[in-house]
Amino acid sequence: MKKTLSIFKIGGNVVDNATALEQFLADFSNVEGLKILIHGGGKIATKISNALGIKTQMINGRRVTDKETVKVVTMVYAGLVNKSIVAQLQALNVNTIGLSGADANVIQSHKRTGSEIDYGFVGDVDQVNHHFISNQLTNGYTLVFAPITHDKKGQLLNTNADTIASEISIAMSQEYHVTLNYCFELPGVLKNIEDLSSIIDRIDPKDYTQLKKDGVIADGMIPKLDNCFHAIDKGVNEVRIIHANDINKQEAGTKLVAS
Amino acid sequence: MKKTLSIFKIGGNVVDNATALEQFLADFSNVEGLKILIHGGGKIATKISNALGIKTQMINGRRVTDKETVKVVTMVYAGLVNKSIVAQLQALNVNTIGLSGADANVIQSHKRTGSEIDYGFVGDVDQVNHHFISNQLTNGYTLVFAPITHDKKGQLLNTNADTIASEISIAMSQEYHVTLNYCFELPGVLKNIEDLSSIIDRIDPKDYTQLKKDGVIADGMIPKLDNCFHAIDKGVNEVRIIHANDINKQEAGTKLVAS
Repeated sequence: MKKTLSIFKIGGNVVDNATALEQFLADFSNVEGLKILIHGGGKIATKISNALGIKTQMINGRRVTDKETVKVVTMVYAGLVNKSIVAQLQALNVNTIGLSGADANVIQSHKRTGSEIDYGFVGDVDQVNHHFISNQLTNGYTLVFAPITHDKKGQLLNTNADTIASEISIAMSQEYHVTLNYCFELPGVLKNIEDLSSIIDRIDPKDYTQLKKDGVIADGMIPKLDNCFHAIDKGVNEVRIIHANDINKQEAGTKLVAS
Repeated sequence: MKKTLSIFKIGGNVVDNATALEQFLADFSNVEGLKILIHGGGKIATKISNALGIKTQMINGRRVTDKETVKVVTMVYAGLVNKSIVAQLQALNVNTIGLSGADANVIQSHKRTGSEIDYGFVGDVDQVNHHFISNQLTNGYTLVFAPITHDKKGQLLNTNADTIASEISIAMSQEYHVTLNYCFELPGVLKNIEDLSSIIDRIDPKDYTQLKKDGVIADGMIPKLDNCFHAIDKGVNEVRIIHANDINKQEAGTKLVAS
């Protein structure tokens, strides 16, 4: 039987809030078994870009990562955010290693090309070195990933943290029974966005098609859930969408399953 | 017989100069056998502190690391500088992992207390996890350390890169035949600072006492060489002070030896 591996992704809303982050990390330290954390960026990068006089260009609500911006996100994500999380987890006796995709060539990507819009130094993942990750987990380390990858030609690339979480989960599912947990600010996927108790417990691909058709799932949730079902298609055993406060509650959130 | 391990330290003069850094990393990629790189900070941290409106307080020519400054140095040293070096080495086919002292609890320190001047969040090293380092080297990885450590209570600490280099060298000398190379902007320790050809080939502790008495070695070189002889006293086999361009030249620079 495959060993269990729990993978968690937290976004800017947790990273930007010291109290929320502290609470999340305390909960994460209590998760039993092998575990990995992927964190997003947060607003500090924008604040620092502005202070340095780097103009933040947004297209369709997404940041364009120019040559100077990729330096800022590397600093903030792989430096400040990643190492602060590592230090806090060490204080909680979780022996953690913080990584970017360049370290041990663990996530190799290529600069996105061919899309109509040029988002700059943004990476699309090519491969995850699951042997390296597996070895570190086996040796007792918990891994924390910043959303920065590289192209193996010397260029660091800003990479979507949700995608990193799903690509790592897919790669690790060759060897482990993987549960991927997307932690956010809501208690799950809601039938009615105004009613926090209207959590949909379970969604399979057929339900998903219907929920989109009915307009229950729309806008920003669609790429998020597409990404989740992609992970399930590729072998991840279970994906959960949950509130960052609920990671140790067995039945919390929305469970996405193959069928 | 012990395996050989080569440890290199580069300072701000290399880190701040893209061409010099590129040349150094190309040379470093050609160093045979097991190797470790420790890098200093550079002037980018000051630039970013200024842009963010953080006042840089200097006492006796040394930076005071307040609560905001430790965030900036973590960003710049453990993020931008460290990951840029890792990505460049990956492009040169050196499989590298970039680390701060918090990662894998590899360098634990404590906030300096008891000195007359309060330099703020500055770490004095307590212990180096040489087992972790040794395992990674054995598995084929080259390690690159940023001069940031932690206190195991959640606080990151700014830590002198020369000291990190000597403490890692001392810890590793239990298991390896260690050569520690301090790379800087001069070809070695000079008899006459105005004459770049006046390199002193070899200094033992007795020579060192005499050279200080004669005023040949003075000012900033004294703490540097004290640190080197401390490493030798504690078991490091050889310390070299060399120009960053000379790391693959067998007889370059000044060799410091036990006797």
